[in-house]
Amino acid sequence: MKTYPECLPCLLRQAIQASRLAGADEAKVMKAAALAEEFLKNVDINNNPPHISRNMHRIIRAELGNPDPYLDIKEKYNHIAMSMFDSMKLRVAKSDDPLLTAIRAAIAGNVIDFGAQLEFDLEADLNDVMTKQFAVLDYAAFKEALSANKEVLYLGDNTGETVFDRILIEEIKRIYGTKITYVIKESPILNDALFHDAVFAGIDKTADVISSGADSPGIVLEYASDDFKRRFYSAGMIISKGQGNFESLYGEPVPAFYLLKLKCDVVAKHTGLPLGGIVLLKG
Amino acid sequence: MKTYPECLPCLLRQAIQASRLAGADEAKVMKAAALAEEFLKNVDINNNPPHISRNMHRIIRAELGNPDPYLDIKEKYNHIAMSMFDSMKLRVAKSDDPLLTAIRAAIAGNVIDFGAQLEFDLEADLNDVMTKQFAVLDYAAFKEALSANKEVLYLGDNTGETVFDRILIEEIKRIYGTKITYVIKESPILNDALFHDAVFAGIDKTADVISSGADSPGIVLEYASDDFKRRFYSAGMIISKGQGNFESLYGEPVPAFYLLKLKCDVVAKHTGLPLGGIVLLKG
Repeated sequence: MKTYPECLPCLLRQAIQASRLAGADEAKVMKAAALAEEFLKNVDINNNPPHISRNMHRIIRAELGNPDPYLDIKEKYNHIAMSMFDSMKLRVAKSDDPLLTAIRAAIAGNVIDFGAQLEFDLEADLNDVMTKQFAVLDYAAFKEALSANKEVLYLGDNTGETVFDRILIEEIKRIYGTKITYVIKESPILNDALFHDAVFAGIDKTADVISSGADSPGIVLEYASDDFKRRFYSAGMIISKGQGNFESLYGEPVPAFYLLKLKCDVVAKHTGLPLGGIVLLKG
Repeated sequence: MKTYPECLPCLLRQAIQASRLAGADEAKVMKAAALAEEFLKNVDINNNPPHISRNMHRIIRAELGNPDPYLDIKEKYNHIAMSMFDSMKLRVAKSDDPLLTAIRAAIAGNVIDFGAQLEFDLEADLNDVMTKQFAVLDYAAFKEALSANKEVLYLGDNTGETVFDRILIEEIKRIYGTKITYVIKESPILNDALFHDAVFAGIDKTADVISSGADSPGIVLEYASDDFKRRFYSAGMIISKGQGNFESLYGEPVPAFYLLKLKCDVVAKHTGLPLGGIVLLKG
């Protein structure tokens, strides 16, 4: 997806948010904002939003002298999400359709996102996703693909969300015996999950964990490692979590299923999908 | 109120919004955004947000070659608001406390605002304000001031909202026989009401209509006319509508009552008032 002018205020907001999280004082926040503004003046909107976000955050982190402004808040949400693991597992196990409920759980975990929203009410948002109707639900095709593929490449998204991904991964493995490769980011960007976070969530016990090779939100193929790209283009089935991956990958000629909540108006308008809607969308 | 770094993305959003409303193509929107970004790099955040907004929009309008990008949408909301006038008047007349209901109506009209929000659900927002509890309600002091003053300076805010202001003005006049002077902006800024809009709403039939002398949202005293400032500082009672006036005037040593809905997180945090809350606040 291309970047729209309407993405620019959101990118600037991210720069300010990162600065605040890094504990910058007002003058330093304004300096970081000015660097972001200077950078955004010259961006090529033919690039996707994660592409632009990646390059902007490199500038901001350098200015802040902080390699991971989101570290503390990631830890916080790792623990919050982990505290919900058992009850969510039980909810899935007890449901009429455990796979579908696990899909909902994985999308619900996607509400833990500081890229698209400033604040959120975790309990309310989780519950909303667990109960609302899907805007798109390519469920038959999803199950068919799971039946046909022994391996799945699963593209992770945010820290904390990883815990909910584990629930879907375990459910897929239980039903289909699928081998899962879970993709995290090479180094810090926003609150995206890193290797540490996948291990914290226990995903390493149930899946191979590999890196995208990059520090972009989503998967910006231009910045991804050759190893990742080889796996990506040869995968028989891909599960792509969240809006960042969707923004950077939707339209790629790969057998991907996109699981996400439409969090922003720009993406909703671009796709014709409803703002706030949840989707399991065959790419 | 000073400007916070968090205001900058919102200001950039306004620049893009104005460009879209002016019918600019993508390249022209990006050009306007770049000018806004350049401007915002160097702003003095000791100025209030309306001060910065006024100067940014001058640049944007010049770039767009359009003196009033919000003209069409202002006309639209003039008509929508006017279509609600009779039923709102009836609601006020039939209520247990017509003055308080008219205050609610005036605040409800303030949901018609393109400065603080991108989109809004008018019916739902109006109804919310008409029924929710006040976060602050300095009602006794307000009535006391009305009893004690033969004249009131009433600071208008947005186009369309003017129609709801007329309801409060008529109610005040009915009960207290007060002479009202209604203040609009000298020339276009965002969707703020101009002389034409006050006339459209019929306010000129029930109040004197004067201009702030400026093209700032809110009342930026630095840019207001001498005539306005004289009236402002000598007024026995001021009713200030909306967040723009609040941002630019709160703290001034004048006998003002601020009527507004807290629309943004920054103002809410600055004042300690709840986001989304409605207030009748003695300044």
